[in-house]
Amino acid sequence: MTSDPLSATFAALADPTRRAILARLVTGEASVTELAEPFEMSMPAISKHLKVLERAGLIARGKEAQWRPCRLEARPLKEVADWADHYRQFWEESFDRLDEYLRVLKNEEKKHGRKPGKR
Amino acid sequence: MTSDPLSATFAALADPTRRAILARLVTGEASVTELAEPFEMSMPAISKHLKVLERAGLIARGKEAQWRPCRLEARPLKEVADWADHYRQFWEESFDRLDEYLRVLKNEEKKHGRKPGKR
Repeated sequence: MTSDPLSATFAALADPTRRAILARLVTGEASVTELAEPFEMSMPAISKHLKVLERAGLIARGKEAQWRPCRLEARPLKEVADWADHYRQFWEESFDRLDEYLRVLKNEEKKHGRKPGKR
Repeated sequence: MTSDPLSATFAALADPTRRAILARLVTGEASVTELAEPFEMSMPAISKHLKVLERAGLIARGKEAQWRPCRLEARPLKEVADWADHYRQFWEESFDRLDEYLRVLKNEEKKHGRKPGKR
């Protein structure tokens, strides 16, 4: 595992359970027990996921000894959005080219009078 | 490694060399040799990274036997941006709260007339 922060963030996000935990935490803090409930997972399995999220800075945990609530941290999520946003122009152009291509195909079909089931 | 597409995308992005390859490809197609050049990496090492990117659908490769140019694919990049965007409201509120907290701190300092070096 590499140690640069963005790689650690992406690695932590490469798991559907961890992404579901983040989606739950966007509605507010939760204890480990509350987080474990919907996943039908053992507490050690959930704890392991939480450790990965915490190490990547995606969540922080309260200091209370008994009930250490987990909460979402904004910064790494914004860094992922900022990173992806650099490619916005690229994908917008790609989808425009695809639209244009489909439009040309449609016009060609019209010109040649092709209809389904007709030769 | 899990098989859901978004997890595969995030796993592929969890490496600075692979992200640098994508950044290079946003300027246009490139051969493996061209991609390998700036990284001082062996061809097999670069090929391995390209396979991970290709499996995640982040790049596609030309069919030409000799020169199989790599090109960027838009869809998974947009999916990452869309995923991160769900958290936009959350991080905007977080940063607003931080701004507000810093503003309150500053006002408190003014009220108590604290200045550097003055007690």
